[in-house]
Amino acid sequence: LNVHYDAIIIGAGVIGCSIAYQLAKRNKKVLIVERSKIGNKASTAAAGMLGVHTELGEDAGLLQACLKSRDMFPALSDEVKEITGIDFELSQNGMIKLAFSESDVLASQRLLSLSKDVEWLTEREVSLLEPSVSRNIGGLYAYKDGNVHAGKFTLALAKSAIRLGSELKEYTPLLSFILEHGVCKGIRTHEGTYYANEVIVAGGAWSGQILKHAGFSTADYPVKGECFSVMLERPIINRTIFTNGCYLVPKRGDRLLVGATEHPHTFDESTSVEGINILLNKAIKILPDLANGRWEKAWTGVRPRTAGGLPHIGRVKGCSGLSIATGHYRNGILLAPLTGVLMADVLEGKEIEPMFEPGEMDERMMIREGKD
Amino acid sequence: LNVHYDAIIIGAGVIGCSIAYQLAKRNKKVLIVERSKIGNKASTAAAGMLGVHTELGEDAGLLQACLKSRDMFPALSDEVKEITGIDFELSQNGMIKLAFSESDVLASQRLLSLSKDVEWLTEREVSLLEPSVSRNIGGLYAYKDGNVHAGKFTLALAKSAIRLGSELKEYTPLLSFILEHGVCKGIRTHEGTYYANEVIVAGGAWSGQILKHAGFSTADYPVKGECFSVMLERPIINRTIFTNGCYLVPKRGDRLLVGATEHPHTFDESTSVEGINILLNKAIKILPDLANGRWEKAWTGVRPRTAGGLPHIGRVKGCSGLSIATGHYRNGILLAPLTGVLMADVLEGKEIEPMFEPGEMDERMMIREGKD
Amino acid sequence: LNVHYDAIIIGAGVIGCSIAYQLAKRNKKVLIVERSKIGNKASTAAAGMLGVHTELGEDAGLLQACLKSRDMFPALSDEVKEITGIDFELSQNGMIKLAFSESDVLASQRLLSLSKDVEWLTEREVSLLEPSVSRNIGGLYAYKDGNVHAGKFTLALAKSAIRLGSELKEYTPLLSFILEHGVCKGIRTHEGTYYANEVIVAGGAWSGQILKHAGFSTADYPVKGECFSVMLERPIINRTIFTNGCYLVPKRGDRLLVGATEHPHTFDESTSVEGINILLNKAIKILPDLANGRWEKAWTGVRPRTAGGLPHIGRVKGCSGLSIATGHYRNGILLAPLTGVLMADVLEGKEIEPMFEPGEMDERMMIREGKD
Amino acid sequence: LNVHYDAIIIGAGVIGCSIAYQLAKRNKKVLIVERSKIGNKASTAAAGMLGVHTELGEDAGLLQACLKSRDMFPALSDEVKEITGIDFELSQNGMIKLAFSESDVLASQRLLSLSKDVEWLTEREVSLLEPSVSRNIGGLYAYKDGNVHAGKFTLALAKSAIRLGSELKEYTPLLSFILEHGVCKGIRTHEGTYYANEVIVAGGAWSGQILKHAGFSTADYPVKGECFSVMLERPIINRTIFTNGCYLVPKRGDRLLVGATEHPHTFDESTSVEGINILLNKAIKILPDLANGRWEKAWTGVRPRTAGGLPHIGRVKGCSGLSIATGHYRNGILLAPLTGVLMADVLEGKEIEPMFEPGEMDERMMIREGKD
Repeated sequence: LNVHYDAIIIGAGVIGCSIAYQLAKRNKKVLIVERSKIGNKASTAAAGMLGVHTELGEDAGLLQACLKSRDMFPALSDEVKEITGIDFELSQNGMIKLAFSESDVLASQRLLSLSKDVEWLTEREVSLLEPSVSRNIGGLYAYKDGNVHAGKFTLALAKSAIRLGSELKEYTPLLSFILEHGVCKGIRTHEGTYYANEVIVAGGAWSGQILKHAGFSTADYPVKGECFSVMLERPIINRTIFTNGCYLVPKRGDRLLVGATEHPHTFDESTSVEGINILLNKAIKILPDLANGRWEKAWTGVRPRTAGGLPHIGRVKGCSGLSIATGHYRNGILLAPLTGVLMADVLEGKEIEPMFEPGEMDERMMIREGKD
Repeated sequence: LNVHYDAIIIGAGVIGCSIAYQLAKRNKKVLIVERSKIGNKASTAAAGMLGVHTELGEDAGLLQACLKSRDMFPALSDEVKEITGIDFELSQNGMIKLAFSESDVLASQRLLSLSKDVEWLTEREVSLLEPSVSRNIGGLYAYKDGNVHAGKFTLALAKSAIRLGSELKEYTPLLSFILEHGVCKGIRTHEGTYYANEVIVAGGAWSGQILKHAGFSTADYPVKGECFSVMLERPIINRTIFTNGCYLVPKRGDRLLVGATEHPHTFDESTSVEGINILLNKAIKILPDLANGRWEKAWTGVRPRTAGGLPHIGRVKGCSGLSIATGHYRNGILLAPLTGVLMADVLEGKEIEPMFEPGEMDERMMIREGKD
Repeated sequence: LNVHYDAIIIGAGVIGCSIAYQLAKRNKKVLIVERSKIGNKASTAAAGMLGVHTELGEDAGLLQACLKSRDMFPALSDEVKEITGIDFELSQNGMIKLAFSESDVLASQRLLSLSKDVEWLTEREVSLLEPSVSRNIGGLYAYKDGNVHAGKFTLALAKSAIRLGSELKEYTPLLSFILEHGVCKGIRTHEGTYYANEVIVAGGAWSGQILKHAGFSTADYPVKGECFSVMLERPIINRTIFTNGCYLVPKRGDRLLVGATEHPHTFDESTSVEGINILLNKAIKILPDLANGRWEKAWTGVRPRTAGGLPHIGRVKGCSGLSIATGHYRNGILLAPLTGVLMADVLEGKEIEPMFEPGEMDERMMIREGKD
Repeated sequence: LNVHYDAIIIGAGVIGCSIAYQLAKRNKKVLIVERSKIGNKASTAAAGMLGVHTELGEDAGLLQACLKSRDMFPALSDEVKEITGIDFELSQNGMIKLAFSESDVLASQRLLSLSKDVEWLTEREVSLLEPSVSRNIGGLYAYKDGNVHAGKFTLALAKSAIRLGSELKEYTPLLSFILEHGVCKGIRTHEGTYYANEVIVAGGAWSGQILKHAGFSTADYPVKGECFSVMLERPIINRTIFTNGCYLVPKRGDRLLVGATEHPHTFDESTSVEGINILLNKAIKILPDLANGRWEKAWTGVRPRTAGGLPHIGRVKGCSGLSIATGHYRNGILLAPLTGVLMADVLEGKEIEPMFEPGEMDERMMIREGKD
């Protein structure tokens, strides 16, 4: 006798766990299968920025989605703390995107017109708010942006889903999909065979490898990012400071996270000497007092990026019963709450709100490669 | 020019940091000097139990002090979270002290008569509350006891004190006291010489070694304790389960701490194979489902114990300007809030409340040894 | 332009690295691709026993292969130390397989008749050699068995292969095989497409998942094993002590490794509380002085086991250009030297010596599942 | 009944262990007491350079001592490997001290005249030997210098001493000296009171604090040094590369150690962001290929430095029965073999060879402070 689920989710990263949690809230029977353990990859490596306004020249729809997802965090924090006791350390302390050149200023102008929660700060205003920051020519102040403890956020979502009835199987890699006449009926693993109405691939940068098992090929690619953390005697910044190529995120207990490099097209999870050197030089230039901090450690995460830059969230064309939620790149933590709700909506047959339709799979990106 | 402080505290463990915080709240100028770093020893190793009712045959005054200190935690949690953002994970989930023999039952009777916050549970009642616990003959239910994350609690106190103006010098071992005509005027360190109205020794198990520098000898001794932690898929107990020789403390994120062995008269900070073996066997006997958990790690702490069993809190007889706060043994975390207030009262010349006078130094325990 | 290799090896564990080294010695152009990093799984988790005589009722051919491979270690140690400077800590200190029952004695009799390098010890003789061992009824003394540092052994093989011209690509998971008309021509990865005369799957317990990509299914399965290590003040045993379910391996610097549990059919890499508890109880019963040691750490490895119990070494039937070397179970370290030579022989078209023909793939275990 | 020893050594760092080993070889009854565990501080943090020629403007006597001690390593390596099985990874691969300016060249000239084991390399010759090194104007080639694994070296000495009969008590801090009429008779610890003909303080940077207990004050001071390590795919240098402020030491398995900063007068064992940043920038400038390596970790050690720059080795004036061996600064590993022999000679009443008399205590540095 095989168990039948409403949904099987492949991957217990922040996206998979958020989907599981939203489905569980709607009384769906959910199974998460995870190759290693909860949040083992990018979800734990992330700095946890809720940085709606960190990207330049982004799609307007994505910006609105980011705003919407960010605003879901306070209620979500209360919910999961109630269920699990876990405080995922939500800070709504704002973010300042520093400008050092006229082109930086111009780039910020566009965000001022697109977003309601930002304002421009002169250099003097930056200096009043963040006196330790080095010379600049002003900055974009996203006063509602913030950050969370990425690992605890992922854990809290996973544990909340489990408390509401979801099942989680760690150390359970996918062996193959059960495909019948173009319909995905479930999955095979070493632990057993499981059937579901919908199988959702939420494998982060490894989603492409997972989809290979169903005969699909994507143009998605991994982007490695390196970070390090510093312990301070006392706070030297109160808000996230963002610049091109380097951001500094203040965390609980006077820890400061500094990220992140960008190395596309590699799954390499080692931390390069060059990456740390570049980050360190940039960070100390922006915040000279950082030099007095204590080195804690360096680490690396691999983020999933789509060819088009927008996440894939929705049903896979050409294979009924198979969905995907990946490609969140640097916005995985930020977009996790909304992604969870969107996928739950999709599975209930609801229309995804027009302001955000990344569920539309680009056929150039998602071509059926052959027969299983 | 030398700096002059209201108080110098030797030791940035939970006791030293709590005293610093209470003094800082009263606008005192405080310096903490610490041999290594904040909470480096027993304060971080502790399971963080607020176990008012865990000890048998304890002094009634100590019990009242424990109750009083425990009830200070909720307000303290709010205060330090407000100041530092740190949530030290206070749980007020109760503690059940299991009875396996008639003598266990009799021992609990005494606590039923002494404390207002406890009740007796029959085996069936224990089983309703904690169905995973193995066969017993009832238990003492201290429904108001709880636990905190010991390391975060210590850090939050330290950081709060600093935010309120205290200074902390880590990696600054004491070289010698400045003693003049029987008066302690300050301390010498490699970083400099510091003067204060009062020097407070809060060095945990190492307090005796520190007091040696002032020519005092104590009969205090270290008691090594070993612990381990387990990660669970889902909670198997909701309250702390306490037995003679083994307690199990549920923590955030389905972590379970299991403690603690007792090895008196050793500063050995290694974890013995025997200690882990004994604890593991006991823990699995009490809670068979623990066997399915994931081993996380084992560690060791060294707790300060006085010859009389009660903590030393107060002025050192025979040396004006020198105070001591140590000997809290298994109650360091629990008694930290009250100890902070008591020491601040002592320094302001207030009388310590009659219900708890451990400040009285026993001369048998604290005999001036003479010039070495 | 695509690079063409003599051989591509999938997996930089001890088996893959040994094959690479032997091929490199024969001037073959080799590429190793590895999903994570050198020796990341069982090769580093292993206790490193060269335990020819640890298994009961084993195949006689396997025993001869084990003897042969064991005797290759001294020369191999010299070779790789010369090339890389790495000393992989070969000890030829012998192994005693203790008997506690008549059936244990009988089981050892068979090995006495099969192997030339063993002798029987009476209890008194055991006690003279290993006075700390608890009461027994004698033991089988494999005086030529020994052990190595498994992680250093793997690293030394990898580095030696590289110094002799092999290429290694870490963090490079297989995307797919290049299969044309039943012939394997190479592999595709995110780093590029690579062609070779032969592709060799040496993926340990994950070999089955890798072979899935070529449409093959095996009945191999993973067997999880848990271990722990202890630091001793001084040696308490000089030889490996082996019993059913627990062995104790003395390492350099008075470290003692204790292994290993057996949990078949799981890829779970966490360490169970139950596993540690069982091992600890057994180990202390065999060697009571172990209780005085210092707990260091516990860990887990996942070993590859074939349905028939014998390793798969040789060409895959039904797919020219594809070979496999896996299923070494508890003998991966021990059999690595011979496996390297055998695979190099196979690739050069030599006949594998008749005493050991694991290259014969069992068709029941290796059935073509479908089309790619 | 109290035990009586030939010598009690305070401190199980590389110096204390080397002395213990040499005394044990001469059949002396030795006790080592150690506050924490073997090699816990600078002895493990050290890069392990046997850098006879790394210092500029050094005392000629010190240079001769360094040469003599360096040449003791090969035999010592054989001895301790025979006794304990531990290979402390002695490399005799040479050291090149790069010159970037005329003053660097002049500084090296002096060493060319003082030492027999060095020669000058032109830039072209440097480039032939070490092609990855960046542009320079030649270098001093100390072709006989080398390095060891500092932690293993210390462990091997400790374990060798123990095998030859020495006792080691870890986690046993000194409480006080037993001083009678200006004679040191032994020590008191929590573990007991121990008597000896000679008490030898070998406490590294903490020796001054230890001597305080005997009423002595020294002008010695700690010098903090930060290091980091990198894992390489293949070797990029074969010899130690030394420059002012940064050295790169190739280790087994393609690990590269980079050290070390100099922060005098602090016991701070944390690793500063500034220190890592400075070292990283220097190292990449000297060896650009380092940027492609993998970051492993950063750490810190605190080295003992004397006011005069030369180590203190010998009897303490004004206190019979008390000796000292400390102040080795950056040469602790290098000088450990000779220090062990010298101290053993001193204790046997032999004259220390005239070429090296650091045993002469400078009275300005070592003034009896009087009763505290």
